Amino acid sequence: MEKQIAIGIDIGGTHTVIGVVDKNGQILQELKPSIKTPAKSLNPNNDKYISEKLLTEYMSEIYSAIRWIISEVKKSEPEIQIVGIGIGAPNGCFYSGEIEQAPNLPFVGNVKVVEKIANEFPEIEKVKLTNDANAAAIGELIYGGAKGMNDFAMVTLGTGVGSGFVVNGQILYGKDGFAGEFGHTIIIPNGRMCGCGISGHLEAYCSASGIVRTYFELMAFNNVKNAALADVPFSKLTPYDIYLAAKNNDKTAIDTFNRTGEILGIGFANIVHYFSPEAIFLFGGVTSAGDYLIKPAIKVMEDNLLPGFKNKVKVLLSSLPDSSVAVLGASALVW
Amino acid sequence: MEKQIAIGIDIGGTHTVIGVVDKNGQILQELKPSIKTPAKSLNPNNDKYISEKLLTEYMSEIYSAIRWIISEVKKSEPEIQIVGIGIGAPNGCFYSGEIEQAPNLPFVGNVKVVEKIANEFPEIEKVKLTNDANAAAIGELIYGGAKGMNDFAMVTLGTGVGSGFVVNGQILYGKDGFAGEFGHTIIIPNGRMCGCGISGHLEAYCSASGIVRTYFELMAFNNVKNAALADVPFSKLTPYDIYLAAKNNDKTAIDTFNRTGEILGIGFANIVHYFSPEAIFLFGGVTSAGDYLIKPAIKVMEDNLLPGFKNKVKVLLSSLPDSSVAVLGASALVW
Repeated sequence: MEKQIAIGIDIGGTHTVIGVVDKNGQILQELKPSIKTPAKSLNPNNDKYISEKLLTEYMSEIYSAIRWIISEVKKSEPEIQIVGIGIGAPNGCFYSGEIEQAPNLPFVGNVKVVEKIANEFPEIEKVKLTNDANAAAIGELIYGGAKGMNDFAMVTLGTGVGSGFVVNGQILYGKDGFAGEFGHTIIIPNGRMCGCGISGHLEAYCSASGIVRTYFELMAFNNVKNAALADVPFSKLTPYDIYLAAKNNDKTAIDTFNRTGEILGIGFANIVHYFSPEAIFLFGGVTSAGDYLIKPAIKVMEDNLLPGFKNKVKVLLSSLPDSSVAVLGASALVW
Repeated sequence: MEKQIAIGIDIGGTHTVIGVVDKNGQILQELKPSIKTPAKSLNPNNDKYISEKLLTEYMSEIYSAIRWIISEVKKSEPEIQIVGIGIGAPNGCFYSGEIEQAPNLPFVGNVKVVEKIANEFPEIEKVKLTNDANAAAIGELIYGGAKGMNDFAMVTLGTGVGSGFVVNGQILYGKDGFAGEFGHTIIIPNGRMCGCGISGHLEAYCSASGIVRTYFELMAFNNVKNAALADVPFSKLTPYDIYLAAKNNDKTAIDTFNRTGEILGIGFANIVHYFSPEAIFLFGGVTSAGDYLIKPAIKVMEDNLLPGFKNKVKVLLSSLPDSSVAVLGASALVW
């Protein structure tokens, strides 16, 4: 039998990564260096002409990269069968195949990325798109720790907070393809303003910038002039700085992760009561805080579960390697 | 072709209702009077012997009722085919076929209701159990306003707040059959104590007793000595009294529904961001407050939705008749 492979494309905020993946989740080939995703700043006034020009250039870079990567793989395995191309992108809609109103891209309106790639490569049968958190969930399902699970959640903690839910063995897309906005569920009514302009969202507390906000709030509230990070300006502080400070026993840093974990734990309890999942997987830069964040999250989750749910739901770090989860997840759309 | 029918059994807190339903949701026959569900108070000390005795008596009443109702239906239509028996019960688990630790029943441990009925009626192929909110959701899907919808939520507002979610055309059961505990999601961290012993749950605000609590809180907070219901003791007040007071322009009553609706609206916004449903259906005694409750709920929901979700999700009253939704929903499990 021919060896089957999938092409995964991850359209990230700064870079677009392309890889060839086999059914076991082995990356056979990866584009190096990756393609630069055109920045929002290249089209600050949402000019349609500039948008069209940038998109045409960007897509032709993607086409060339797909051609190159196919030819590279075929050098060693000429009989290989390309099953499809999977694409992960912020605001990528599975149903429409379009990237809808992506806030960090310089393109005006929706980008019909599936249609474009399918037209360019008519010999490839399947071209599929979804958002990055769903792609991570599918990657975990096909290649990772969720293999064989019918019901689980994937929570991505990074610049934003995203989520993908697998229900009855299928990704939950909902009516219009955009289900799974855990980051934009309300966790504290009339609480902090979220980047989306609505107040009280979980993302405003548990994203990278949410953690920084909590550090500053606690430092200010308790007037901790000798806090480890008291000399770092707001605009410069990162969650990683706070993590290092926590490791050095800075109380404000430890309290910051406790507070963040508590709010995350309330969110997890809600996920459990809505979905009754087998596990909640975590992925993304913020998870590198490890037990500082995850221990209080699990404690508060358990404290808030009905008896029937207690001590049943696993909270696990994604088993996929950080660097390749995006491409793996995108490629997994195809299987 | 033989006419096909299903038997629906609704095990309520006080009464057990049994009916025969055809594929169009016509109730062909109903048991009158219904069977009394044995009360918790009959076995206050969770005695195993009393539990066994009550259960044996109760089940044999159910068996007799099933036999009677089948014979009645066969009188007019001798060739009728009984496709199955569907049962709705609090804490009814679809997977195990057991009523698990039902707080309002006098039985000790789990009740293997599916096994018992299947053993008694081996000629009936399908015997299925689920909880009451899921049964209402399935009833709406098979016979009601959700016909043809793949993604919707059913929220039941009564003594408690329950929910059933249909996702990709299927009821969301989750890993162990108990998904859909909307009433026990946290809506105000460290808020009101819920009947389950955990604080801040939506049910503590939006159930019948939650609404009564809000009326008393507002009356006390604002010291409204001339409130329409200032003479009614806490133990006697019902949401229906508050509804009547609202109709008579009692400010505290109107504010009570506004406040309840606002909290419900936050919950609805969360449902939308998790599930992206086509509609949210409402059912249960509390919904008779109508626009006093539903208008503020829809307003707050819409105010809290991301742009992509706004003005898309319908909030609708269940289209099934109040009195028969339980039996209809239970019977719908069979189709």
